[in-house]
Parts: sequence; C-alpha cells; structure tokens
Amino acid sequence: MSGESRYPILSQIQSPAQLHDLDRQQLKQLAGEVRQAILDNVSKTGGHFASNLGTVELTVALYATYKIPPDKVCWDTGHQAYPHKLLTGRLDKFDGLRKYGGISGFLRMCESEHDHWGAGHACTAISGALGYAVARDRLKTTERVVAISGDAAMTGGMAWEALNNAAQLNTDITVVLNDNKMSIAENVGALTHHFAKLRSRPWFASAEETAKKFVERFPKAIQKAASGMKHSVTHYFAPEDTGAIFEELGFQYIGPIDGHNLDVLLDVFANVRDLKGPVFVHCITVKGKGYEVAEEDARKWHGVVPFDPDLCEMPKSAGPVSYTQVFGDTILALAKEDPEIVAITAAMPDGTGLTKFSKELPNQYFDVGIAEQHAVTFCAGLAAGGLKPACAIYSTFLQRGYDQVLHDVAIQNLPVRFFMDRGGLVGADGATHHGAFDISYLMFIPNMVIAAPRDTTELAEMIRFAMDYSEAPIAVRYPRGAADDTLPESRTPIRLGKGELIKEGSDIALIGYGSTVAMGHKAALELSKQGVDAAVFNARFAKPLDADAIIELARKTGRMIVAEENAKPGGIGEAIAALLRENGLSQVHIDTLALPDRFIEHGSQNELLEEIGLTPAKIVERAASLCNQRSMR
Amino acid sequence: MSGESRYPILSQIQSPAQLHDLDRQQLKQLAGEVRQAILDNVSKTGGHFASNLGTVELTVALYATYKIPPDKVCWDTGHQAYPHKLLTGRLDKFDGLRKYGGISGFLRMCESEHDHWGAGHACTAISGALGYAVARDRLKTTERVVAISGDAAMTGGMAWEALNNAAQLNTDITVVLNDNKMSIAENVGALTHHFAKLRSRPWFASAEETAKKFVERFPKAIQKAASGMKHSVTHYFAPEDTGAIFEELGFQYIGPIDGHNLDVLLDVFANVRDLKGPVFVHCITVKGKGYEVAEEDARKWHGVVPFDPDLCEMPKSAGPVSYTQVFGDTILALAKEDPEIVAITAAMPDGTGLTKFSKELPNQYFDVGIAEQHAVTFCAGLAAGGLKPACAIYSTFLQRGYDQVLHDVAIQNLPVRFFMDRGGLVGADGATHHGAFDISYLMFIPNMVIAAPRDTTELAEMIRFAMDYSEAPIAVRYPRGAADDTLPESRTPIRLGKGELIKEGSDIALIGYGSTVAMGHKAALELSKQGVDAAVFNARFAKPLDADAIIELARKTGRMIVAEENAKPGGIGEAIAALLRENGLSQVHIDTLALPDRFIEHGSQNELLEEIGLTPAKIVERAASLCNQRSMR
Repeated sequence: MSGESRYPILSQIQSPAQLHDLDRQQLKQLAGEVRQAILDNVSKTGGHFASNLGTVELTVALYATYKIPPDKVCWDTGHQAYPHKLLTGRLDKFDGLRKYGGISGFLRMCESEHDHWGAGHACTAISGALGYAVARDRLKTTERVVAISGDAAMTGGMAWEALNNAAQLNTDITVVLNDNKMSIAENVGALTHHFAKLRSRPWFASAEETAKKFVERFPKAIQKAASGMKHSVTHYFAPEDTGAIFEELGFQYIGPIDGHNLDVLLDVFANVRDLKGPVFVHCITVKGKGYEVAEEDARKWHGVVPFDPDLCEMPKSAGPVSYTQVFGDTILALAKEDPEIVAITAAMPDGTGLTKFSKELPNQYFDVGIAEQHAVTFCAGLAAGGLKPACAIYSTFLQRGYDQVLHDVAIQNLPVRFFMDRGGLVGADGATHHGAFDISYLMFIPNMVIAAPRDTTELAEMIRFAMDYSEAPIAVRYPRGAADDTLPESRTPIRLGKGELIKEGSDIALIGYGSTVAMGHKAALELSKQGVDAAVFNARFAKPLDADAIIELARKTGRMIVAEENAKPGGIGEAIAALLRENGLSQVHIDTLALPDRFIEHGSQNELLEEIGLTPAKIVERAASLCNQRSMR
Repeated sequence: MSGESRYPILSQIQSPAQLHDLDRQQLKQLAGEVRQAILDNVSKTGGHFASNLGTVELTVALYATYKIPPDKVCWDTGHQAYPHKLLTGRLDKFDGLRKYGGISGFLRMCESEHDHWGAGHACTAISGALGYAVARDRLKTTERVVAISGDAAMTGGMAWEALNNAAQLNTDITVVLNDNKMSIAENVGALTHHFAKLRSRPWFASAEETAKKFVERFPKAIQKAASGMKHSVTHYFAPEDTGAIFEELGFQYIGPIDGHNLDVLLDVFANVRDLKGPVFVHCITVKGKGYEVAEEDARKWHGVVPFDPDLCEMPKSAGPVSYTQVFGDTILALAKEDPEIVAITAAMPDGTGLTKFSKELPNQYFDVGIAEQHAVTFCAGLAAGGLKPACAIYSTFLQRGYDQVLHDVAIQNLPVRFFMDRGGLVGADGATHHGAFDISYLMFIPNMVIAAPRDTTELAEMIRFAMDYSEAPIAVRYPRGAADDTLPESRTPIRLGKGELIKEGSDIALIGYGSTVAMGHKAALELSKQGVDAAVFNARFAKPLDADAIIELARKTGRMIVAEENAKPGGIGEAIAALLRENGLSQVHIDTLALPDRFIEHGSQNELLEEIGLTPAKIVERAASLCNQRSMR
C-alpha cells in the first residue's frame, strides 16, 4: 500500500504548520497514522520503539497548538522524537532510519530546519531551550519556546541546573515532562517517588471526564494568574502538596495530564501557550502505547531489532556472544566470589550488561540514574571507603563525568575500575554515541591506566586483572557487538603495561589496540601472500605503553602501522610516535590509521569503517606502501 | 608570641578526637583560637579567608560531637576547611599554606589521614560521602558519614544527583548545608529564593533563646522519628512549608540553625548523629564572621593577598594588567557596541573578570551558578538562537562541561566562544586548579578552533577575532596573572589558523603557544649569544595549525622545540610532530617541553615552572643539545 493510501493525512504533512488546518477528528486520525507509521517502519529498520509510541499524541497536540515556525521545540534526546520527524516531512525517508546515508535516529540541526535541537545524550534540552528563550528576549521576537524532557532525564543534575536558571531568569519557557515512569530501564532515585506521588492524585485516576472539567475551568485560572494571584494556575490541576519541587523552584506546575488524551492535551497546550514565565507541564504517557506487548514490557521494546509486527515478538539475537555479555557475566561471577565488588551504572543496566547482576546481587548493584557526574564520584567514594567499584559506562557517556574522573578519581588516585562499553564506532546511533575519543581524553590524565582487549576472551581476563589491580584507577574499553574471533587462540597472561606479540615479522610491525588487533592480523595474513613479513602486536595497554616491546619491534622492522578506533590526536598512535622519537628512533616510519577529524554519522559499523578507511585492506595498502618507500631508498 | 601561649588549647590538638575531652567553655575558647589562627596566618600567607571564618563554630561543634576517627567528614571544596586543617594537627604548618612545599589550600587525602575527601572543585562531597556510607554498610562497620556543602554548591546539578541517590538508598548520611548566602560571588538561581525563604522563618530571626527551646524538645522528636512517625523530626525546626525540596527528595530536614551558636550546634549535632537515614542540617553562617570588614564585604575578602590585620584593609594589587582584566575590559567594550554579545559565567564573575560587565550590562550578563554543564549548553542554545555567547570559564572548570562542549556545541557546530582563563599552571591553588589539560581535551574535537595569545595585547585582538568568527566554536586560553611583556611590539593581525614569526632564525625553530612564546623569545636571545640562530614562532592556533609556516620552518632549520603549558599527550607538540611526519619530515628533530605526566602541586607559578623544567634556560639547554646532535653527524 502506498504512503498516500496508508497515511492519507500524514503523507500530506511537510511542515508542522499544516496541523493548524486540521480539525480534532483529523488530528486524531493523524495521530493514528503516526503511530502506524512508527510501527510499519521501525519494525523493518529497528530503532527506538516504545518511547516513540508514547509521544504520538503529545507531539500532534503540541504541533497543532504551537506555531512552528517560528516557535521552537527542543526535544531532550531524539529517541522520543520520531513523531516529530514524521510530522516534519520525513515520512518518505523513514525506511532509511539509522541506516548509512539515511536519516538519523536522533534529531540533528543539520537534518531539518525543524530540528531546533539535536541530542543523543539526555538532560540537555532545557538548557538549550533557555538559550533560545533568552535569545528571543534580547532579539525582541515573540516565538514561544518549549523543552520536552523525559522523566529519567530529571535524574540528571544538568536538568536541575537549567530549571534553577530558568526560574531565576523568569522568562517565558515551557518545560513539558514526558513522564512514562521508566526511561530506558526502570527509573531510579528519590525523584521517582515524587513523580509517583504526583501521578497518584485522585483526579488523574478518574481520567477523561474529570480532566475535561478541569480544562473547561482553565481559562479563568489564567485570568487569575494574569492578575498576579499566587497559586491560581499553579495549583489548578494539582492539589496543594504536589508539584512542590517545581513550584519551589519557581515554575508554574500544571498536571499531571493524560498524555494520550488528544482533547485534553490540545486544550491544555492552547492555554499554556499564552502563559507568562516558566511553566512546567506534567504529562503522563505510556511507553509502547498502542502496541500491547510493548506496553507490557517497555524495557524490552525500548530499542528493537527488525521484527514482524503481527507476531508481536522480537527475534532473539542469535549471533556470537557480545563484549557486553562477557562483561556482565564476568563481573557477576567475580562479585559473587568477592563481596567487596560493587557495580555501578548510570541508568544503563541493559546496555552495559548488568541486568542479571542487578537481579542476582541487588546489594552490590547501584543504578544512580542518568547521573554520570555522580556515578563517577560515587565510585571514588566507594573506593575511598574500601570497596572495589566497577563503573560500567559507555565511552561516550563517560564524557559526562569527565571532570569527576580527573578531579575525584585520578587526583586522589582511587582505584575505580571503569568498563567502557561502546568504545569505537557504535553504528546506527551515530555521531552522539560513537566512542571516538576515550583514548585521547584519558591518555593525559596522570595515574590512569588505560587498556583494551583484543577479543571477548581477553576482556574477561582483563576484567579480572582490573578488579585485582588497586594501585590506581584503570579504564578498559571494548567495542559494541561481538569480537572478530579470527585471532590465534594462544594467549599470554595480562600484565600491567605489557602487550602481546601475536605474530613475529621482520618487515613491518602492525600494532593494534582492542578491535584493531584482529584487523592487523588479517592484514598480516594478506601481506604474507604479497611477500611482506609483518609482525602483529596487541598493545593491550595504551597507558602505560609496553615501551620495551614497541621499541624492539621498531628497531627490528623500521616500519610501523598503528591502527585505533579513536581520534588521532592524543591517541595511541601519537603516543607510540612520541615514544620512538624520545628514544632516538624518529627515523622509524610510522603511520597511524585512526578516526578522521570530523564527526562520523550513522550506519553499520562496517560501512563506517569502510568509509573512513580503517580496514585490513587499508592496512595492507599502507603497509605495502611503507615497505616500498624503504626499498626505494 | 609562641603558638602555645597564643593558642593554648589549639596548639595541643593533634586529632579531632581530643575535642571530646573539652567542656563547652573550652570549646568556645578553642573556636576563638581557631578564628585567631586563621586571621594570624592567612593575613600573612594570603588564601581563602572569609569562607573559613564562617565555618569555625560549625567545625568545632562537629568534631566535638562526631568520633573522628572512625567517622568520616567530606568537605565540599577545601576552601571552607581551614578550621578542619587547624583541628587536625596542622597549626604548625599553617605559615606554609599554599606555598611551594607547604600545605595545600584545599584538602588532600594524601596530606592527612583526617582529610577523608579532597576537593578544589565544588559539588562533589555528597557523592563522595555517599560512597563512604555505602562502603560502611557493605563492610558492616558503624562509623557516621557527614558531607558539608556550601549553599552555592547546591546550584550544581551534581549535588542534586547525589541527594536523589542518597535519598533512594536511604542509608545513614548527614548533609550539612553551610549556608552563607553567598559563596564566591552572590549566589544565583531560584534555589537562592528557596534558601531565603527557609532563612526568613520567624524562629531563626528570634535567635538564641528560641532556638535553645527547640533543642530542648529535640530528643522527644527523635523518639517519635524512631517510632516511624512522618514529619516528627523533619518539621521540628521548620514550619510546614519550608525545607520542601529536601523533604520531597526524602531527606529529614533540620534547620535552619545558627551556625555560630556553639551551644545550639553541639546540641543539634549530638542528636543528629544518632538519626537514621538521610538527614539534611541547614546551618546559617556568616562569611567573614568575626572580622568586621570581611563580614561587610565577604566577596572582596573571599580570597585575600597578605594584609595587615590591624589595618582592616587589603592592599591594592599594583602589578601590571592581568589577562583577566584585559578579557573583562575587552568583552565589555565589544558588548557595548554589539547588543548580540552576551557573557556567561558559572559563578565566577570576579575570577573571570566579568564583574564590571555584570554591573554595566546586566541584560547581557548571565551568572548561572556553579553549573558548568548548563553554562556550556545554555551557550549552545544562545548561539542557536542567534546571539554571540562568550563563555568565560577557567580551563579546569570547563572539564565539568566537557560532554556539553562535545555533544551540544561541537557536534551542532554552534559558534560558542570559550574564554578559558587560568590556562597553564595557576600557582597557589595547585593540582585541582591548574589548567593543565585544555589543549589536549579540545584538540581532537571536530569543528573546534583552539587559540592562545602570546600576551595581553594579543588577547584583546584574539577576543575581537573570536567574537567576529561565527563558523565554528572557538576556545581561547590564557594564563593566570599578567603577561611577560618582553616580546617585540611589532604585530601581525590575527587570521584563522595563522601563526606569527616573531624572529627569523636558521639553526632551530622555537615554537611557543600562549605563555611559552615569551619563553622561546628569551631563549632565542640567549642562544644568539651562544652563536645559535633560533627562529621564534608564535603558533597562535593549536587548531587549525599553521601547517605552511611550520613546515617551512622545519625545512629551513631541521630542528624544532615546541614549548607548551599543557600535558604532552594530545598537546600542540604532538600535533606538530604528526604534521611533520605526515609531510615526510620525520627526519626533523623535534623536542617538546610540556607538563610532566603527574599532577603538579601548589607553589608560585615560577617555582612550579622551574620544578618541571619549563623555562627559557631549559629551552636553551635543549636547543643547544639538539644543535650539537646535528653537528655530530
């Protein structure tokens, strides 16, 4: 069925402004079409699923009420914003979602004029929206500014910094809380209880009719507010003891309202749009709304692989064991033996492989919420107190606790063990999620030990090593997905600052770190067919480097290629070049294959590696070229 | 007068445990001696002054109540913890405060067994203390854990992440709020109003006697709390509508109490020490307490240079104009001309030179609180909205908004202008405050432009350049203090990615970046006396590098020394080495003088530079050695 017949209204929408021409019946139909389009497309492409089914009515109501352009809407993380994408002219492009060359799974300012804010990381939208609001005030324009934030993002301190500042500036800004009670995993923290209290108030339970009555009386409330009476609008929906935190901060609190009742949403937003000052609208939504099994297990259906929508089942991933699983299994096994081991995640138990750990050892497990700053410093405190903290975190999210790594962990030299999943290119999540920088941003931190395993078996050994190592903080990075297990099985034990020679060779040394060790080995096999005898070295530690072994290889071969899934500046390639230079070996030819100096978009990991030229074939090409250079002399 | 006669009790105190042997009269005398010792010493050494006069009674009462060891006290930033230092055996060392080889101006776990938590950056103590508390619970010991936080630290989201997590874990932890209404500058944000509301409640105004009555009834309240009744202790001190935020989070809120009334403090802490669960004690203190002029202008007396305590006046600093002043004057002048320019600080208007700006252009000025994450992303939003944000921040504090630089500014390529003061070694503030890493942590971020001026005149030009530059984010770093203005006055205009040849030379090229340009120039003058003809090059841009000029210099001289006040990995030295390598110039001898791979302690900037060997003399030595190497061939 063509787009026009399957989505008769949606297929005509190129700009949110068109929603103003639709009546309520048509808007309801449009919401149905948006939901259908999400199901149709995401079941084919994979992507974020349950969160987007939850924001359908919210988005339709918002865009039917606000004038876009010029009004600005900042979504906190794009994985709740597929309805936004569909209502801003991207229906036709949805089959390319998260694919190479296709549209992003998040919002991107460069992808659409309607993407006023791009975000893959949470907690940023209120800050961004406040910037828009202040710019509007200074430039004396009149557009409205809205930020939409999930409830889990409220566990992140940055959101509170922004609320605090917004209330102080007292400018016109609306924060819509998309409260689905559970963001990626179950929400955690004391705030959850606060939200639960707000949700539990009687009127919300009595649903549509009661809500409608409130809305009918709403305009009067606005009149009162305009005349300066305190608590008129503020408390209109909520009884006196709810909304307290937001009101104490200086927001007008409205809610909670049913985030799937289009009539209520339209009425509320129509009124809210004209309110002055900072307004907080609390919407209750259901993750997975409209797709029963996703409603029942929203965590499972948060991010999906392609599935048959009629079967209502997600295919089991049958592939080889992932690094994430190996981390989860290994740290669980170790923690069962050693009660001093504790595992910490910032709202990513599934993504980091800690779900089983959380169930089997709940007393040794801490999910602190989307709060990476606290996660890191909490780990510092745990280590200071005598425990052995394992901080499980994505490479890209450790950036959010960066000063804490430096100031609280490294300066105090506390033995926090960081396990950085998604080191290197992550694929479909794209620029905001690639672990493209962790070698560089940790390399120059005094006291830090930095390591990466060549494969999943080595990861398990490295975890054991790290948990036994208590002299200093240590960070182990490993990639998304499964290991390329084509490397020879013979292994040497992990020792601090020592690498592993995987293959002897006299013409050139190929140095890999983590995922690139297997690339180097493949390249060496190909090179040997071409008559080039390449050594393959598994660096294991980026810091401290195995200086002796690397210098010996340099002396022996006179040529080196270092490959790393990381930016070049501050990476292991530059560290090795500096090592050689400082040891009088600057005549050694050294070439680094690393990530280019630009943000890398989404696509499969292999497509992206191919695009940037970080492949065995490219190593072969460069190695052959280096060897020829020498022979030409 | 000797320590023993001037501080008869304090001079006997080596451990806080000894305070348990003193009666209340002695404790009051001790508090007086602590205050006197702060005045006596800090007036000679300089250092943080007003904040420490404010915590005298708080500290004495805490240490007379809690058992240290084994109880743990985590101070949020050490600049309120001089009384702690004095009560933990460091009276004799106080004349060496912040001096080279002397005790630190902050707490350091490596300085004393009683420093349970070290911090120069704010907002970390609750996270650290929660780590200690959880470790205690798992290790089944019984010590109490206290975090002491200033009110300004509550504007930092990280503190809220920790409160949220602490309340959820529901472990025994006490957070003492040292509320002096103003931390470094006037406190900002909506929370300030919340605190003001708490402070304004009637009983606190009626002071000592009333407070005492409350305390007398306190034990009964504890009994009630033990029997599980809600709001018994919680609301004992505060009426129903105060403390709301902390209570909503799940803390028992006690306060506000007079933070200078030792009797009240002793009674309250004695009771609080036995409370279960998370407790929040709100103490009102006066910054500068006991030294009248400091009470009146606590902002001026926050950090002091040596002064005569009898004169009650701080000597005017007469030295040459500082980079900070030049930044403040220049951005103010530009913003007066261009209403789209806005200046943003995270609670550091004085430190970053924005005080005058805040007074003259209040509508273009934003102090967001100690909230660097929000500060950076707020700037991203301001830029997206069409303004020209100048984010004025210390190099070390930009680490706290690091992911925001990457994720919100750089990925979206928004023209935020960062002005990073205190790039390089800062001197007396030591390890937590050195701007030792910013070149490295920005170098690999795609889209970023990174620059540093050779002196204050060039800073002014660079600020103009940066504010005109709207293609990408740009970060300008400059050092603490005044420029070494020994460089020749002839100047070339600032152009993107172009450096400046300060002196021609054929034997070796000395490349400086920011503060090290003058070092290179001095070295060149000395080298010319030794018959070595050294070129001096002002790199200006670390990214993009002036590749043409650097390659030309390399070809011409064959030898290069790069000097930078930054860690070596990821620094400009490595970038230049990579540039040469990639252009077939790996035979060029290149040597980098940079910061060593360890945290650098406190002392004067010159003492520290001498210690690490980043001086003109060292450049001369290395240059001479490089030139000899060549000639030996």
